[in-house]
Amino acid sequence: MTENNKIEPFNDHFLNSFLNPRSITVFGANNNLLTTMGSMQLRNIIAGGGVDDIYPVHPRLDKIQGFKAYKSVLELPVTPDLAFLILPTRVVPQVMEECGEKGIKNLLITSGGFREIGKDGVQFSQEIDKIAKKYKIRFIGPNCLGLYNAWYRYPEKEDAYINTFWPYAVPKKGNISIISQSGTIAAQTFWHAKEMGVNIGKSLSVGNERNIDMVDFLEYFKNDPHTGVIGLYIEEIKRGKEFIQLVKEITPKKPIVAIYTGGTKAANRSIKSHTGSLGGDQKIYDAVFKEAGIISTNYITDFLYYLRTLSFAQKYNIFIKGNRVGIITDSGGSGSMMTKSSELYGLEVPEFSKQLKDDLSELIPFTASAKNPIDVTFDANFLNIFYKFPKMLMKSGEVDSIIVWGVFDFDDVIETIEQSGMKIDENIKNMGTMLDRTILRPVRSLMKKYSIPVYFSGPFPYRFPWFQKFISYDLPIFDFWDAPPKCLKILYEYSQYRRDHS
Amino acid sequence: MTENNKIEPFNDHFLNSFLNPRSITVFGANNNLLTTMGSMQLRNIIAGGGVDDIYPVHPRLDKIQGFKAYKSVLELPVTPDLAFLILPTRVVPQVMEECGEKGIKNLLITSGGFREIGKDGVQFSQEIDKIAKKYKIRFIGPNCLGLYNAWYRYPEKEDAYINTFWPYAVPKKGNISIISQSGTIAAQTFWHAKEMGVNIGKSLSVGNERNIDMVDFLEYFKNDPHTGVIGLYIEEIKRGKEFIQLVKEITPKKPIVAIYTGGTKAANRSIKSHTGSLGGDQKIYDAVFKEAGIISTNYITDFLYYLRTLSFAQKYNIFIKGNRVGIITDSGGSGSMMTKSSELYGLEVPEFSKQLKDDLSELIPFTASAKNPIDVTFDANFLNIFYKFPKMLMKSGEVDSIIVWGVFDFDDVIETIEQSGMKIDENIKNMGTMLDRTILRPVRSLMKKYSIPVYFSGPFPYRFPWFQKFISYDLPIFDFWDAPPKCLKILYEYSQYRRDHS
Repeated sequence: MTENNKIEPFNDHFLNSFLNPRSITVFGANNNLLTTMGSMQLRNIIAGGGVDDIYPVHPRLDKIQGFKAYKSVLELPVTPDLAFLILPTRVVPQVMEECGEKGIKNLLITSGGFREIGKDGVQFSQEIDKIAKKYKIRFIGPNCLGLYNAWYRYPEKEDAYINTFWPYAVPKKGNISIISQSGTIAAQTFWHAKEMGVNIGKSLSVGNERNIDMVDFLEYFKNDPHTGVIGLYIEEIKRGKEFIQLVKEITPKKPIVAIYTGGTKAANRSIKSHTGSLGGDQKIYDAVFKEAGIISTNYITDFLYYLRTLSFAQKYNIFIKGNRVGIITDSGGSGSMMTKSSELYGLEVPEFSKQLKDDLSELIPFTASAKNPIDVTFDANFLNIFYKFPKMLMKSGEVDSIIVWGVFDFDDVIETIEQSGMKIDENIKNMGTMLDRTILRPVRSLMKKYSIPVYFSGPFPYRFPWFQKFISYDLPIFDFWDAPPKCLKILYEYSQYRRDHS
Repeated sequence: MTENNKIEPFNDHFLNSFLNPRSITVFGANNNLLTTMGSMQLRNIIAGGGVDDIYPVHPRLDKIQGFKAYKSVLELPVTPDLAFLILPTRVVPQVMEECGEKGIKNLLITSGGFREIGKDGVQFSQEIDKIAKKYKIRFIGPNCLGLYNAWYRYPEKEDAYINTFWPYAVPKKGNISIISQSGTIAAQTFWHAKEMGVNIGKSLSVGNERNIDMVDFLEYFKNDPHTGVIGLYIEEIKRGKEFIQLVKEITPKKPIVAIYTGGTKAANRSIKSHTGSLGGDQKIYDAVFKEAGIISTNYITDFLYYLRTLSFAQKYNIFIKGNRVGIITDSGGSGSMMTKSSELYGLEVPEFSKQLKDDLSELIPFTASAKNPIDVTFDANFLNIFYKFPKMLMKSGEVDSIIVWGVFDFDDVIETIEQSGMKIDENIKNMGTMLDRTILRPVRSLMKKYSIPVYFSGPFPYRFPWFQKFISYDLPIFDFWDAPPKCLKILYEYSQYRRDHS
């Protein structure tokens, strides 16, 4: 293995070299990106732009995606840090044996067809265990997609990342780390994550966990300075005691959000075919999660929302002290719906004091309401609803968190208006730029100052430029008004838990 | 009023002329689309392209958005079908009086500042009641955004629509009709609806319902041939008895999805400031909804999903006979999650018969599973997972509904691959086109033949071309795997209700 002992501050953990390999050999890639999963995975490793040396191994080809290909791993000029196997199951043991001979200690095994297919597969599994033991090999998988690391050799390689998954989209680098017994949850969430501002720094598809398991990665993430929040997709917990112990140590400092997918009849059958796990009783998992402070959900959308919520709280240290929500809206209907949801989630939407109502009333139309929700009706004064009102609420001490409904894509509005033949002032056209300076950055500072988060929302899909603008400032913004109350509930509960366990 | 008695088959209902005015006079619009809501609303009426004559009225301007403006409604050369008032509250009675003198019978009153602001507002309300009575005027509002009708003067004006809302985005024409006590729910949902394939034909913002209420529109929609599903946003039900009676007649034929937003302390306060309603007890509403067969939700996302689900069922007459779901996936994780959710929602995911498993096994890799879920693992054979497998399940008689996970945006994949320097065969590039002919149309026919719906999903946001392709064929497709089981549960329950009440 090449030297890589200057990469990260806790480089003594054995997983560090898995996440930051300087050189990789790839088995099972060719030049046909369309039909061979391994080819797409190699493409993505290349696209990450960081890995120093890539050595494809192939029985026939001389060149693969621009790299010299070798007939056997034994022919490689060096011993690479990591071997990545995307091969038919039957050839895996032989290739593993050769990797061992070559001195490679870290393997990623994507190949499926192990215990999840039954008896034959179990035999294969035992065979690879033996080879691993013989050569002191550690491996991730089999039956996995590998890993994504946006912090690859950080800070040395600031703009590089490593992505061994076949999906090619990658989210913005962030403090979220995922460990998943499903490649889909580890990687196919990236298109949405990218668009929604769910900033993921590391994602691991651990597959059958034959050698390296979730507990190993939890250990790693516990001390990883780039991990602020952890997401887990669980079909089975292998080392129960160690898991609970470790999670209890982690959750008071780094929140964990988990999906558990066993617990019902057909779901247990499904996960058996998937990773070969034996699904357990839902009640046991509920109890474990509760005891260990894990935030749990059955839905992928909530999983991403909660990770995003806690990622922001963690990054800017904005945890909340109570359950009082202030709601600012330019629409009565969404205001009423958010108010009702907040109350159903156990949050409080207190009527403001006379003083605060009077102060607010001076700034809103006479048809508007200042009671909480503050409903400004049709009044697109962005400075008021995005900044001034939140500031007034923060200073009042009457709320612990704030939701603002009314983010429109003003660029889209302007474009529509221009198409109608109206000339628009350059100053107004540049409102987007002004927004950055006068609202987005300052409101984030306010949030930090008061430790009161402001969740924004509006009626556009995430892809619209103004939503992306908020996201580029890392502000929590949600399409529609369903998510903010739900996410505040999660933040409130976690903030309490964190306080109680500090 | 001009003659409009050839518009629709049930033109004797008085609301028909509200939804299909041939001529409109607009108060409160000018040339500044940016700061005046009424100007944007006029812009949208113009953009609809159908209305024959538009008469802006303005005290000073001579021309508004290209149309001759009049100083007073009394100066108009004709008596328009509809007057649209977006004016300061104080001038509304005077303008109404003049409209009455001119002989205008239909009014849309956007202006707020009536009962929702308290005592003064109540007085204004009584004043406009009197004027309406004096001139036999019917009006929608006040405190509303008006209406959207994609079926405007259909079929005479096939491509035209009328949109008096200020949001300018309009969804595709469909069989969904919305009646909302919030303009936001009526109109600000359109950006998402358009992208998600929620095809709305009519949407009404009824505001304070001072003259025309939800019951009037329900009466209209009951017989409207273009209404297949109804969505309601309710803060208060004004004519309780009539409402329940009418809804009971409607729901066995046309499903109704409703949001009720009162029922909690702060929510009741919020809706009082919004439309001036007095929110009621949640339990009463729950009981009424149950008795009348209304599908209810507190979330806007579910509201749109359920409308979309039932819109499809209604349009193609695809209701389901039982609760057995067949799941087809190319990913174990999403398969397991959908299986678990289905079971939590009371649906069944039965293991397939030996015969069916054997038949399926011939078509999938050896690492795959045919038990239900069918997990094909990484096997992008679209013909199999989108068409052949659904067909086999349908023929087997072993399921009542099907979910397919695995819609990728192949165009996006191809583009990414091409950027990597690989040459791609023209046939493969044209797969999108082939998809239309060989999969999308045929699978819809199969659904109709067997009365078994197939819900598609995949990891891309709706905006991606392949998702839009499915949507253009009206196929139910969802981003992520949370929605399909939830929507199937709604369809299952409604199908049962419909059978029990037929």
